[in-house]
Amino acid sequence: MKISNIDVTLRDGGYRNGFQFELDYARDHIRQMGQSGIEWTEIGYRNGSFKPIINIGDMGMTPDSYIQLMREATQASCICVMAHPKNIDAAEIEHMRRLGVDMLRFCMDNERPEMTRNYIKLAKSLGFIVSLNLTRVSHQTLKQLIYSAELGCNAGADVIYLADSNGSMTPEQVERLVRVLHEVTNATLGFHAHDNLGLAMSNSIAAIEGGARFIDASLRGMGKGAGNLKMELWLSYLKRGMGIERYDYCLLLDQVAQLERVEAKARPVQPLDDLILGLFDLTVDDKERISFNASSISQLFANASA
Amino acid sequence: MKISNIDVTLRDGGYRNGFQFELDYARDHIRQMGQSGIEWTEIGYRNGSFKPIINIGDMGMTPDSYIQLMREATQASCICVMAHPKNIDAAEIEHMRRLGVDMLRFCMDNERPEMTRNYIKLAKSLGFIVSLNLTRVSHQTLKQLIYSAELGCNAGADVIYLADSNGSMTPEQVERLVRVLHEVTNATLGFHAHDNLGLAMSNSIAAIEGGARFIDASLRGMGKGAGNLKMELWLSYLKRGMGIERYDYCLLLDQVAQLERVEAKARPVQPLDDLILGLFDLTVDDKERISFNASSISQLFANASA
Repeated sequence: MKISNIDVTLRDGGYRNGFQFELDYARDHIRQMGQSGIEWTEIGYRNGSFKPIINIGDMGMTPDSYIQLMREATQASCICVMAHPKNIDAAEIEHMRRLGVDMLRFCMDNERPEMTRNYIKLAKSLGFIVSLNLTRVSHQTLKQLIYSAELGCNAGADVIYLADSNGSMTPEQVERLVRVLHEVTNATLGFHAHDNLGLAMSNSIAAIEGGARFIDASLRGMGKGAGNLKMELWLSYLKRGMGIERYDYCLLLDQVAQLERVEAKARPVQPLDDLILGLFDLTVDDKERISFNASSISQLFANASA
Repeated sequence: MKISNIDVTLRDGGYRNGFQFELDYARDHIRQMGQSGIEWTEIGYRNGSFKPIINIGDMGMTPDSYIQLMREATQASCICVMAHPKNIDAAEIEHMRRLGVDMLRFCMDNERPEMTRNYIKLAKSLGFIVSLNLTRVSHQTLKQLIYSAELGCNAGADVIYLADSNGSMTPEQVERLVRVLHEVTNATLGFHAHDNLGLAMSNSIAAIEGGARFIDASLRGMGKGAGNLKMELWLSYLKRGMGIERYDYCLLLDQVAQLERVEAKARPVQPLDDLILGLFDLTVDDKERISFNASSISQLFANASA
């Protein structure tokens, strides 16, 4: 069984530090990821996240100079960039290919399906590996997810990614969703976990059992809110649980230690309000109104059982 | 399906702070655990851990005065005490029953099986709920584990607990081991996880799938080394994944916040050397010789593949 892993530290971890990793760190990071045997490294968003972020750093914009630096740093790891269709255009896509980006991940834009489809087609024609990422899947109907997955497949996407953006899914739900989408669309599926309920690992294992072949993870789980699947733990599972021996743990753990030295925000955290978001399948946008206190939680429970 | 949970914060968490929780905290803790609906609270070791610990606190010795304080604090949560057979005697067991301890957990002593058996029998005759805890199961043969489980069952133990002390097991191994022991002995089984590889949650889910009905967890996973299954996440899983609604999350999360306020060592950590212990199925006694650096890890990998 071939499993491909995408390191998302620089992209999803960017939500923790304003997408402001030092370029020196980023260069070391992608080099070590490549030498550790990790198949893909995602270096950031092109032209921003879904919503504007003030003072967003290079990993949130992925300017040409940054792509060039990353491309020069490694041949071993393939470079991946994420983009929201509304933030880019055809010229941008062509330009990124010339700069040496290997994979483009488009976030499905449910309001602009035609644009999403056309960008996938264009990217494929240019030789990119293309992923269509379906986000916040716990808030979408199965019908909508099948529609999006089919759109991606028909446009030529190599991978359809499912993101549990709210970190609220259970292993059973993940396995079933991956299995159903695979059966209906025959797509190669990927899974992107968030760890609000401490289920990032269980859900990623379940995704593999359901048939997924791409997994996202980040060093120390550094990512939005409660963070992602932890790459160092995931690769340990691949070794002990699946007998996959092709990764260099010395280099990997060395890079984890380096990340912690340069970036305090990489430290694993489990804020209680993120746990509550997961418990009620709420989004990070709901975070402000539930800042942790007993009365706000009581209210949520009252609403949930009403 | 009835699942019983044992909160082990005061006992296993004691390894993080020399078993030195403030008595005021301990009293609040057991009261809140009881009111949250958590079935059992383990308050400590009677007369020490396996090896002597210098300046060990109340949660490592469980003196009479401490048991009395805990007993007065709650009627809702049942009180559990852990003991190594070599550290106690029959009079101690009788005395603990008079003090109001509800459950005794004996750690299986492979060098003193007769003593272990006799203590289980005595405790049962006195009206305790009795658990026999098999520790470091990843270093024992299946034959040895079956022998110990049968010894416990024949002596009248209510629960046979399996402890993944090294935090090195995979979900598949846990599920199979629980299933086999259940089939052979018909025992009610429990599982105690350590989170070295981030598999505490996955392994506990797997234990339930294999037929276990008792699960250990601690607030924030506070426990030896990489820590235990996190109670606040586990109960969230029981709610979202298994539809079990009987716990009060407001009280539970409130207690998590209180623990973090009074005890910095409760903070979730994932030291890289504990990850490495899990990766190679090493014990905490091996920790000194592998203090994290690239050359010591390289050596471990070289040894492992030799």
